[in-house]
Amino acid sequence: MSEVTPSEPTLLVLDADPPPRLGKLTGRARVLHADESTLAAQLPLADVLLVWDFTSHAVRHAWPGEGPRPRWVHTASAGADHLLCPELVASDAVVTNARGIFDKPIAEYVAGLVLAFAKDLPRTLELQRQRRWLHRETRRIAGTRACVVGSGPIGIAIAKSLMALGIQVAIVGRTARRGIHAIGDLDRLLARSDWAVCVAPLTEETRGMFDARRFGMMQPSTYFINVGRGPLVVEADLLDALAKRWIAGAALDVFEEEPLPADSPLWDAPGLLVSPHMSGDTVGWRDELGAQFVELYERWAAGEPLVNVIDKKRGYVPGH
Amino acid sequence: MSEVTPSEPTLLVLDADPPPRLGKLTGRARVLHADESTLAAQLPLADVLLVWDFTSHAVRHAWPGEGPRPRWVHTASAGADHLLCPELVASDAVVTNARGIFDKPIAEYVAGLVLAFAKDLPRTLELQRQRRWLHRETRRIAGTRACVVGSGPIGIAIAKSLMALGIQVAIVGRTARRGIHAIGDLDRLLARSDWAVCVAPLTEETRGMFDARRFGMMQPSTYFINVGRGPLVVEADLLDALAKRWIAGAALDVFEEEPLPADSPLWDAPGLLVSPHMSGDTVGWRDELGAQFVELYERWAAGEPLVNVIDKKRGYVPGH
Repeated sequence: MSEVTPSEPTLLVLDADPPPRLGKLTGRARVLHADESTLAAQLPLADVLLVWDFTSHAVRHAWPGEGPRPRWVHTASAGADHLLCPELVASDAVVTNARGIFDKPIAEYVAGLVLAFAKDLPRTLELQRQRRWLHRETRRIAGTRACVVGSGPIGIAIAKSLMALGIQVAIVGRTARRGIHAIGDLDRLLARSDWAVCVAPLTEETRGMFDARRFGMMQPSTYFINVGRGPLVVEADLLDALAKRWIAGAALDVFEEEPLPADSPLWDAPGLLVSPHMSGDTVGWRDELGAQFVELYERWAAGEPLVNVIDKKRGYVPGH
Repeated sequence: MSEVTPSEPTLLVLDADPPPRLGKLTGRARVLHADESTLAAQLPLADVLLVWDFTSHAVRHAWPGEGPRPRWVHTASAGADHLLCPELVASDAVVTNARGIFDKPIAEYVAGLVLAFAKDLPRTLELQRQRRWLHRETRRIAGTRACVVGSGPIGIAIAKSLMALGIQVAIVGRTARRGIHAIGDLDRLLARSDWAVCVAPLTEETRGMFDARRFGMMQPSTYFINVGRGPLVVEADLLDALAKRWIAGAALDVFEEEPLPADSPLWDAPGLLVSPHMSGDTVGWRDELGAQFVELYERWAAGEPLVNVIDKKRGYVPGH
């Protein structure tokens, strides 16, 4: 046991695997690690909770209703849906997220998916496996139209990348603001989009927003891409829309259940590209997440106001 | 047989399949069609030759050494390597190409390949077929470096697309000019590039320019992309470089022999993406090629100077 100054705050990290960069907090924090089974017992001891394993929903179940609890919770992710239980929302704990880290990586990923679909790359790879030379005409992307659903920094970065490639982009948020359409415009915009990109936060309002009705109003040439959260999409409805060719294809990076079970019908749905929740995870991302947390911790320890603070009732960091 | 005004020039089209838009020349040209077997017999009758089937090398063999021959040859392609035989080069026939039609489509295609490699998309599709959820970290493309070999309008369009995605791009041409490096800089630039893109014209100087020596100077993390002409690459050397992991991967859209034979070792070379010479062929491309030819024909018939005129000795339209 190392010497502990009583004044050092206790930082509880939900993850057996220690995040990089926490060495910088030596002497300034007493770092404890929790896993899903020990979290409930350890939470009352912690001043700060770092949710490093953002795939875990354990905080929802372990958050103490009353009594001692962390004053600050940070999640190393853009979404906070995995931890926002009613008790945490009602508490005075501040919740922050990894706003900023994933913006440009995800924007590149989405641009890659759009180009892969436009240039028929999955089919090219399939034909290559069959050693078949089959010339096809592919699509131009310049001049096509995209609708990006989600007006946070990731949605805006996606829009910028697509615009740089000559695509006309409409961004949709909860409410209208400069350059952003309100959710009420969504149906009209989807009906005329070649690309529908979902990167909305998962809230009670957005859950299941991409359902049979919305796939039905898309064009048969439209591609749908979800890099937000799995439950934004009604997966059975997407499977149906693909089977009936209501839309041309889709890419899902996130799923109702992750990892996607091996027996899921999504794996071999026609026209569906499945990737393992990795759109934002470029080389060095863990290091950037660790550095961002250390910077926030230094603000917090100095009594300065935190940034990236989530509006717990809405479920995301509000836009400006 | 329709009525023919003696003053109508004879337009010979090398392709059994008539190009679109030639209806506009009704009454202004006598249109004949040739295939590879009849070309030699028909060439002496033609004032103009339209090489619509740009996959054919028949002009090289059929071009008349002396005597009557077309005064103007247009190829519906960017490259003219398939028709420039010594007799045609020595003759006074003007040769034009489809400069401009393929620039932006190929630029989009190359951007798609770069993003597909950076985001490990071929592997994602392979894992999907195996129903395997395997998270990986992928590459950011912003801040990486590309070397585009070929300083014509296609090379410049590729450079612009990659720069729009945040990539630092160096363009290499035969001689240095504003914004273009001379060929003498190529080796130095290749050695520091993450992406090496070949879109040079095929000439005696460029044939086989990507060989073991040049693959050997690339980095193990470099991806090589050829959208120019097959013989720019020594295919056996590329196979060897991939097998020895001198480079990370490659994409070939053009080949020494097209269609690529089913028994070619290129089809299943590790890290190689094979596509069937289609990088520039987006929906509507044949129509654009037809319209471009009609516009050139109208200039020619009016005695105006042609544009897109190839320097037959160099083998391409010289830059400005």
